[in-house]
Amino acid sequence: MFDDHLRDTATRVQALLTDLLQPAAQIGEVARPERLLAAMRHAVLNGGKRLRPFLVVESAWLFGGDKDAALRVGAALECLHCYSLVHDDLPAMDDDDLRRGQPTVHIAFDEATAILAGDSLLTFAFEIIAAPQTPLADGARTALVLALARAAGLGGMAGGQALDLAAEKQAPDEAGIVTLQAMKTGALLRFACEAGPVIAGAAEGDRQTLRQFGELIGRAFQLADDLLDLTADAATMGKATGKDAGRGKGTLVGLKGQAWAEAELDRLVDAAVELLAPYGARAETLIGAARFVANRKN
Amino acid sequence: MFDDHLRDTATRVQALLTDLLQPAAQIGEVARPERLLAAMRHAVLNGGKRLRPFLVVESAWLFGGDKDAALRVGAALECLHCYSLVHDDLPAMDDDDLRRGQPTVHIAFDEATAILAGDSLLTFAFEIIAAPQTPLADGARTALVLALARAAGLGGMAGGQALDLAAEKQAPDEAGIVTLQAMKTGALLRFACEAGPVIAGAAEGDRQTLRQFGELIGRAFQLADDLLDLTADAATMGKATGKDAGRGKGTLVGLKGQAWAEAELDRLVDAAVELLAPYGARAETLIGAARFVANRKN
Repeated sequence: MFDDHLRDTATRVQALLTDLLQPAAQIGEVARPERLLAAMRHAVLNGGKRLRPFLVVESAWLFGGDKDAALRVGAALECLHCYSLVHDDLPAMDDDDLRRGQPTVHIAFDEATAILAGDSLLTFAFEIIAAPQTPLADGARTALVLALARAAGLGGMAGGQALDLAAEKQAPDEAGIVTLQAMKTGALLRFACEAGPVIAGAAEGDRQTLRQFGELIGRAFQLADDLLDLTADAATMGKATGKDAGRGKGTLVGLKGQAWAEAELDRLVDAAVELLAPYGARAETLIGAARFVANRKN
Repeated sequence: MFDDHLRDTATRVQALLTDLLQPAAQIGEVARPERLLAAMRHAVLNGGKRLRPFLVVESAWLFGGDKDAALRVGAALECLHCYSLVHDDLPAMDDDDLRRGQPTVHIAFDEATAILAGDSLLTFAFEIIAAPQTPLADGARTALVLALARAAGLGGMAGGQALDLAAEKQAPDEAGIVTLQAMKTGALLRFACEAGPVIAGAAEGDRQTLRQFGELIGRAFQLADDLLDLTADAATMGKATGKDAGRGKGTLVGLKGQAWAEAELDRLVDAAVELLAPYGARAETLIGAARFVANRKN
């Protein structure tokens, strides 16, 4: 049931992204940087689970938000997520050759194209949200641009990645790890859950609740990731594993042990369930998402 | 008189950018990626002429736009311009060690930090425009986000940079050069001139006129740049081909000669003057900007 929902949204997101990045798309200028566009497609149209768009779509549905608007904001968020993967994979960053079993963008194309493809996907995310084709009230549109910029920039994902690079030289303490992860992986997941009530024009209290829900999901996501990194092999993950610990990066699992992490995951899911209890049965799919994030195997 | 105006705006832009990027600035999270912020400051607080913010400020003034809003949109545009310089300077791109006599960001810091600093400056540009501190009507705010994203992305600056990389392998013809330059350097200058009427809520016709003015400025800027590249290298290296030509990049100056380029510059300035004639004496400073761009010596 939950899996059907997730797969269904992934199919619709894939179709929309394919349309947005189609080679024949009018982009306002005569010349077409075809190779750059091909690199963007390689980065985005890769069969991902589309978890972030799914959270946008489901959190918007909870408050009766426009479905088309939610799907397009979800697609924008996915572009932004994919930009971060392309830049993280660069030789100067994590230096990864494979992602989901495919060559990363700088391997399939070249490093300069990978830098520009990431830049263009980041920019495209804001274009999608600002475009009139995305049916949003002006106030909601501005709120989404601001929230997305804050989630992605210095105080969010990019800042978290910078702290992560620093962590390779000096391992952070527990509080440092929590903050780093809240920025690096948490910020976009918080945005995904918060975006729904913003799209729907829901009350500020609902926005705060969904933001807290996103916070819990983000922490569960990272813990599950760290546990997988510890236990799974490269075949399951489609990327190199055991790498974070090997580089001396601190993780909460490394610091506090596997048993603690598994108990903490249960606690996070329970807290997420409790948080959405006031919304009753309508919140079932979002609660399913929390369980999915905590129990995922790749 | 014009120089005073330009210097005056540069001083105010520098003060605002210093404030926006101050180390103590609250960025919404506990941890502070200080090194990343330092790299952003290195990229932005470099004593540039701030031509793009100047064009925003003057084009807004022409239509009675809010001065503070114009200055902040100008600062956002400068952050975006500086992001493009940081990424262009990377080893995988133009591989430049020096900019304005200072080490480039990847030299002063490291390559990973330079990539993230560029990413964060690009993101910060959208944050500044979307932030409530920038006094804009919601409609104008959305229009600016959309126009800036289009000027910066696949169909604008980043796309132009991709075409420029391709031009090193296969020299484009005249039409190809014109398109490449309209995207790579023209798009942000067009945005700068168009932003003023948008900030002021001026009529669509005024927006179109200022966009055309920006188009002319952009072409003049690039021609002046190519002429400088030619003469600067000729002086130091005793040969008639500059750095771009030496790399196999086509320029209009290389294709059509120095005499043509100098006449074309005059023609572009005349066209700019004529375009703004209906605005009378109020447009004097913007016309001064067109002359400045055409005649600049560095």
